Amino acid sequence: MNDPVGRIRRRLGELGADAALLTNLAHIRWSTGFTGSNGVALVDGTRVVFVTDPRYAEQARLECPDNEVVVTSGSFPEALRANSSPYGRIVLDALSLTVAQYRELARQFHESDLLIEAGWLDVEVARKQRSEIGRIAAAQALTDDVFTRLLEYLRPGVTERQVAAEIVYLHLQAGADRMSFEPIVASGPNGAFPHGRPGSRVLRDCEPVVIDMGCYLDGYASDMTRTVHIGPATNEFAETYKVVLEAQQLAIGIARSGLRADELDGVARAFLVDAGLGDYFVHSLGHGLGLDVHEWPRIGRNSEYVLPDSCVVTIEPGVYLPGKWGIRIEDIVVLSPEGCRNLTGSSSALLELDG
Amino acid sequence: MNDPVGRIRRRLGELGADAALLTNLAHIRWSTGFTGSNGVALVDGTRVVFVTDPRYAEQARLECPDNEVVVTSGSFPEALRANSSPYGRIVLDALSLTVAQYRELARQFHESDLLIEAGWLDVEVARKQRSEIGRIAAAQALTDDVFTRLLEYLRPGVTERQVAAEIVYLHLQAGADRMSFEPIVASGPNGAFPHGRPGSRVLRDCEPVVIDMGCYLDGYASDMTRTVHIGPATNEFAETYKVVLEAQQLAIGIARSGLRADELDGVARAFLVDAGLGDYFVHSLGHGLGLDVHEWPRIGRNSEYVLPDSCVVTIEPGVYLPGKWGIRIEDIVVLSPEGCRNLTGSSSALLELDG
Repeated sequence: MNDPVGRIRRRLGELGADAALLTNLAHIRWSTGFTGSNGVALVDGTRVVFVTDPRYAEQARLECPDNEVVVTSGSFPEALRANSSPYGRIVLDALSLTVAQYRELARQFHESDLLIEAGWLDVEVARKQRSEIGRIAAAQALTDDVFTRLLEYLRPGVTERQVAAEIVYLHLQAGADRMSFEPIVASGPNGAFPHGRPGSRVLRDCEPVVIDMGCYLDGYASDMTRTVHIGPATNEFAETYKVVLEAQQLAIGIARSGLRADELDGVARAFLVDAGLGDYFVHSLGHGLGLDVHEWPRIGRNSEYVLPDSCVVTIEPGVYLPGKWGIRIEDIVVLSPEGCRNLTGSSSALLELDG
Repeated sequence: MNDPVGRIRRRLGELGADAALLTNLAHIRWSTGFTGSNGVALVDGTRVVFVTDPRYAEQARLECPDNEVVVTSGSFPEALRANSSPYGRIVLDALSLTVAQYRELARQFHESDLLIEAGWLDVEVARKQRSEIGRIAAAQALTDDVFTRLLEYLRPGVTERQVAAEIVYLHLQAGADRMSFEPIVASGPNGAFPHGRPGSRVLRDCEPVVIDMGCYLDGYASDMTRTVHIGPATNEFAETYKVVLEAQQLAIGIARSGLRADELDGVARAFLVDAGLGDYFVHSLGHGLGLDVHEWPRIGRNSEYVLPDSCVVTIEPGVYLPGKWGIRIEDIVVLSPEGCRNLTGSSSALLELDG
């Protein structure tokens, strides 16, 4: 009962449901193996029915040998009803189901049998198996290697966009499936935009640059941010960097399963507030990652839930000074009851590159 | 009233609604200019209120000077209600609203005031302005240029994955924002998977390779597929290629606004059926593109709607012979009442590269 389908069935029992409809593609991959971009799966006590469109007919049969694969160019809910047992209650995930999909389901099944839950599978998906942690670590090792090779490319005169292109190319050449998000390369004052997109601005001497990047390898995500300085850092920058790094190390030091996520966020946040930087830490401390680069649990101020065992999360405090620069430092860690293990291999000490 | 917000307001009048909630990020960019990844917009007769999270505070104020920008780390619907006029009916898009979002809205507004429509803005977004067509053409010109440069890279011994990495790198180096989807590079029998992902298979002499690629440039998408042959093609391949190309040219020849989308699909499909290839054309003929690489209108068998003027669509018939190879040829065209204009610059004649 430790395999994904077994865990879904256990949750069905807890929810008093007869079947589960999976609409989140990461959950579908987790439980069926299907890697394509279109499909829904229905899991009951004895069967797994996977519906996709004809583009994926061959692929689904190869990837999902344990499932009943149904191919249709028509309505997925209609195909599901035609190929499934007569059910009582079917649990749906409100976070990954559109209102249009719900309405189509309600036409095919009894609406009173549709049990809508938000994120009912999230805790199970967050509890990573050993093999999953290994894959995340492998994806992160690839990103760590790219970071090392990237350092010689970071010099005054290259544009943010060129750095981003290099990041993507190095990842893909090294075997990444694809990027887990578009790299962020934010130099000088652009660093004050936490999610700034790389543009035509050139890296300059005596300025920092925020680099946030990650890939998917064998389906699993990596994610890392480093803020490096081109040329020598000013005292103000070096001191602020030290504070952000201390906030991160403090959070990593106490991170463990069993802790509430908002408490973990709160420790880093209180430290930055005490340092007078609280107003500039404008996002959450971190998020889960796995088959999706952003998955439950978010680690933020309103995250009133307990962090599960074997969960992999980012720890990424940041401060953003409008008109000046930004600093963010992000590692990924795997949680256990005793603490956490850092999967990120790159040093987080302040790097001052040749200007 | 030709600007996006004016067109939304006209639609509000037609729907008998007082305000529109936009949840599709492409629609939000179209009407507000916001290019980030998180936000919702409420458009009424006099105001546009845009809500985003603190990561995007600075960016939203720069990108949306005409809107009222609200920044919250809490619930978007709650922020909307606090910052909006008291409304009657608010129209929602069932295609881009999750059930969880809907439930949160229903807590903040009167549920009876929420008017759920699927794709109510799609026709307006599909009618491209001249400047939008120019941007799509520019994105496609970039992809055409990448294709030309890629040809010398296509040779026996390189892996699909290496070709895909080269495609991405060439696009990003040439200034693309990002890819509009992961490139498909499917050699030999892998070509029989319409959406196969590039893997470790090496390109071999005397085999075809399907290449499907596109980027975003200045927010707008390109999309093109070419099937080229490494070394001389067999007669069977050359003849099948000729049939697919004829099906495509036939469809391009009759494509115009005012035509029903299913009729356009039907013409290409009937041609392939007559040639004995109907069973191998397993997807729709095409789809709209713009700020999203896949947008309304889909051009398929069940597409019972009329194609609007100034709409940009792909025309991409394909045949997939399991165990052998696949052929797909895809151009993008802009529709007018008189016919269509092809925005794709790359030749679609069969290319036999040096093996």
